[in-house]
Amino acid sequence: MQGLMSQYPLTLTHIFNRAERLFADKGVATVQAGGIDRITYGEWAQRTRKLATVLDELGISPDGRVATFAWNTARHLELYFAAPCSGRVLHTLNIRLFPDDIVYIADHAEDEVVFVDRSLLGVFWPLVDRLSTVKHVIVMDDGVPEEVPDDPRVQDYETLLAAASPAEFPVLEDENQAAAMCYTSGTTGHPKGVVYSHRSTVLHSMGALVVDAAAVSEKDRVMPVVPMFHANAWGLCQAAVMAGANLVMPGPKMQPAAIAELMEGEKVTLAAGVPTIWMGVLPELKGRDLSSLRDIVCGGSAVPKSLSEAYREQVGLPILQAWGMTETSPVATTGRIKSQFADASDEELADLRAAQGTPIPLVELRIADPATGEELPWDGEARGELQAIGPWIARAYYNDERSDDSFTEDGWLRTGDVATISPNGYVRLVDRTKDLVKSGGEWISSVELENAIMAHPKIAEAAVIGIPDEKWSERPLACVVPENGEEVTLDELREFLAERVPKWWLPNDLEIIEEVPKTSVGKFSKKTLREQFAERKATA
Amino acid sequence: MQGLMSQYPLTLTHIFNRAERLFADKGVATVQAGGIDRITYGEWAQRTRKLATVLDELGISPDGRVATFAWNTARHLELYFAAPCSGRVLHTLNIRLFPDDIVYIADHAEDEVVFVDRSLLGVFWPLVDRLSTVKHVIVMDDGVPEEVPDDPRVQDYETLLAAASPAEFPVLEDENQAAAMCYTSGTTGHPKGVVYSHRSTVLHSMGALVVDAAAVSEKDRVMPVVPMFHANAWGLCQAAVMAGANLVMPGPKMQPAAIAELMEGEKVTLAAGVPTIWMGVLPELKGRDLSSLRDIVCGGSAVPKSLSEAYREQVGLPILQAWGMTETSPVATTGRIKSQFADASDEELADLRAAQGTPIPLVELRIADPATGEELPWDGEARGELQAIGPWIARAYYNDERSDDSFTEDGWLRTGDVATISPNGYVRLVDRTKDLVKSGGEWISSVELENAIMAHPKIAEAAVIGIPDEKWSERPLACVVPENGEEVTLDELREFLAERVPKWWLPNDLEIIEEVPKTSVGKFSKKTLREQFAERKATA
Repeated sequence: MQGLMSQYPLTLTHIFNRAERLFADKGVATVQAGGIDRITYGEWAQRTRKLATVLDELGISPDGRVATFAWNTARHLELYFAAPCSGRVLHTLNIRLFPDDIVYIADHAEDEVVFVDRSLLGVFWPLVDRLSTVKHVIVMDDGVPEEVPDDPRVQDYETLLAAASPAEFPVLEDENQAAAMCYTSGTTGHPKGVVYSHRSTVLHSMGALVVDAAAVSEKDRVMPVVPMFHANAWGLCQAAVMAGANLVMPGPKMQPAAIAELMEGEKVTLAAGVPTIWMGVLPELKGRDLSSLRDIVCGGSAVPKSLSEAYREQVGLPILQAWGMTETSPVATTGRIKSQFADASDEELADLRAAQGTPIPLVELRIADPATGEELPWDGEARGELQAIGPWIARAYYNDERSDDSFTEDGWLRTGDVATISPNGYVRLVDRTKDLVKSGGEWISSVELENAIMAHPKIAEAAVIGIPDEKWSERPLACVVPENGEEVTLDELREFLAERVPKWWLPNDLEIIEEVPKTSVGKFSKKTLREQFAERKATA
Repeated sequence: MQGLMSQYPLTLTHIFNRAERLFADKGVATVQAGGIDRITYGEWAQRTRKLATVLDELGISPDGRVATFAWNTARHLELYFAAPCSGRVLHTLNIRLFPDDIVYIADHAEDEVVFVDRSLLGVFWPLVDRLSTVKHVIVMDDGVPEEVPDDPRVQDYETLLAAASPAEFPVLEDENQAAAMCYTSGTTGHPKGVVYSHRSTVLHSMGALVVDAAAVSEKDRVMPVVPMFHANAWGLCQAAVMAGANLVMPGPKMQPAAIAELMEGEKVTLAAGVPTIWMGVLPELKGRDLSSLRDIVCGGSAVPKSLSEAYREQVGLPILQAWGMTETSPVATTGRIKSQFADASDEELADLRAAQGTPIPLVELRIADPATGEELPWDGEARGELQAIGPWIARAYYNDERSDDSFTEDGWLRTGDVATISPNGYVRLVDRTKDLVKSGGEWISSVELENAIMAHPKIAEAAVIGIPDEKWSERPLACVVPENGEEVTLDELREFLAERVPKWWLPNDLEIIEEVPKTSVGKFSKKTLREQFAERKATA
């Protein structure tokens, strides 16, 4: 028997119409070179409709890819809606990727046009002749006096908009139609493309409005510090438009002092960024009035307990950790404290906040043995690969043969993260699957071992990789960066670790290195270390 | 181009699994004859799985209708999930309908089994031999010593559950599969059946978790006073299970004093009921500790400004009005105050709260001229029929030829309500379309005219209906119930109204009546009045 409910499709046009009709007086503040630009959703909606006409007039295909190379701005938000609401596909290019990767993904997605912030022309323009499908480069003038190339492909955003009439968006019948794509920079091989649908984006936005998730409401002033080219700024832009919340966009001014000033000046209620951002911003918040602030959301990599506690002590607000990845739209868990912990001590709460939190509605999680795929219990002890499924979780990569490796036969995403899940549903990441060290049939968490090593007062940074061992299959190699001028020996390290980790985790091998190599987005690149020490064998 | 997101269907099984896994320690408190029964979601989930086995063992068809005739209880919540999660369809029978209507809808839906609270056997059992498709009557013993009939159709709920093993729920591939049905008692003809899908129910539940809607969270203790047989208790039961909120169920104890005691004793945070309930409960709340309470939700019919203000003055919390109907799952609007009114006066706020509020995400509304169907502006002045569309809005009635009258060609629900919508999206109901009086090509709102009449100090109740007029097509007839012992004349009434309504609204016809006839759910029955005065013609 079928339900008799409206076959109303879930599309971004609904979110757009909602803001245009219900929240015309709310809007977006964007930092530009000359100061703060303000626009209401009423004006924004008119401009977004004109932008759709511009896409038509540029001759972009009905489902053509519309690329952006831009900071967080109101104009970027116009593109976020004009592309999908006109049936096209938004493609946010990550400005921080290596040039070869940018060229690869623009070609792979078959981008037809790129919208570039003027301040980013210096990064973007040198690549343009390598992009085989891009016919137009539209420059969005943010007041930074980069030279605009005299080239037939180049046009000015505002000039085009001024000449266009506002479009009526077509009715999109199929909610599974693509709305946007974003490439994720794997640590091996080319980046892989994730394709969001209208349905997934609308549902993810609803998720962000849920109280126990990000709780975005009409009363909020939401500041995504996380870039709009990085996993959709965690969906906060679409969520704010849906809720009618004001948006505060930092534009190109991503320096800690500028962020701190904006938080106070714009009375931001919810701000979201990666740990590095919040580490930098904290000292700049001293003495500021942050009474409007209700949530500092942090994700992208694990949030150190010390950072959250430092915020709690100085700002009066601990960090709210969230977990997800490009493939999960991205929000899958949030670290809200359940009511059962109402009487927990500060220390217990700090420990709980250091976990990645519990799944939000419509997301399902499980952990599985990395070798056998067997599902593991939620006992807070068993470590397994974290797998996810739900309406905003990817089921495949775009035109990519590597999809089979990343999804299980029953359709779950293999996140590559290793986690425990407590009986009450708190996920705690302990490693990446490919970084686990398999020793004698058991798994050593490289992250936990690194954390133990970095607790040593003479050690600044450390990374652990597995190296081949005849008897145990693999053994850990500790790659260590000593504090300035210090020396560290293997014996001293083993002695320090003896009380901190199981005995069979103790490394027999130590390498002193100058620094831990990093990926383009600032994470430890163990791939580089593995290449560097490819010949190394474990000491018996 | 298609999105590459998981084809994960939106089903109630997800909500069920979520509570079972993440919120096993939270649960439901139910008032029964012997006191308060408490059950955790962990226990509830096990019982719900056993109940699915019971449905199998009773031989209920794979998509058979499972009827309930019951108060708000944890057992009723077991049925809310066991039926749809096993692929069947829950059918909540309204215990307050006239017997003929109950018989009609049970037959029309082809109910195979009815689960009856023991305390309701006195109402239900006299009908049983008229029900042509019902093979089983399962009695849920709530401790009220009604006689249980000695009949082969009758079995005891707990006995069946005790003998059953917990079922694994099947994977439901189609989110548009029917999950539940509920009949709406129109004022003309038989009740009409609305069929909810898994998708509509899941999305409506998400809607209830949104901050600017009901904002149900894990920290809540939710008390649906609105019955589970009345438009799904406004979806609060499924929403609470999804959020992991505790539920407080009043069972058969619906008296104001019992409700008030429960609100205090169970530290209820959110309570929901129709205006009549809250009128009765208010005096009982005097002197009680209601510090946990954050929202008193009210709907079903317009909330008088005076009632909301009385709550604000006595309890410190105005009433939160919501609007919807069985066909809208039911929540379509909520009366949250937008941030633009942060500086409004108490009077302005009271006036705003007397409106039905703004549409929640995924619901679209419009108003249309009742005669021409032309869409009308959102200017707070134009009065038109309120129409709705969205993923939890019905598109047809179940096996009913009257569907065509209630839905537009482009798929919108014709609510039959007449409303204005302000530029900022606040809906304000002014009448029912069928109660409008069409005079000289213009519409007179019967409700507004009634309110003006009832403001007269000598008048207790009044209802206005249209009667034929040769010149004006229709004119209003004022049907008036004077206060005890008072007399009211037409001249006196016209004089009183002259300053309160447009001149052409002034009635030329008055009927003094003993009381305004009511429907089975307590609303003014203008249908009865129209029948009573069918021969009446307007005075020139």
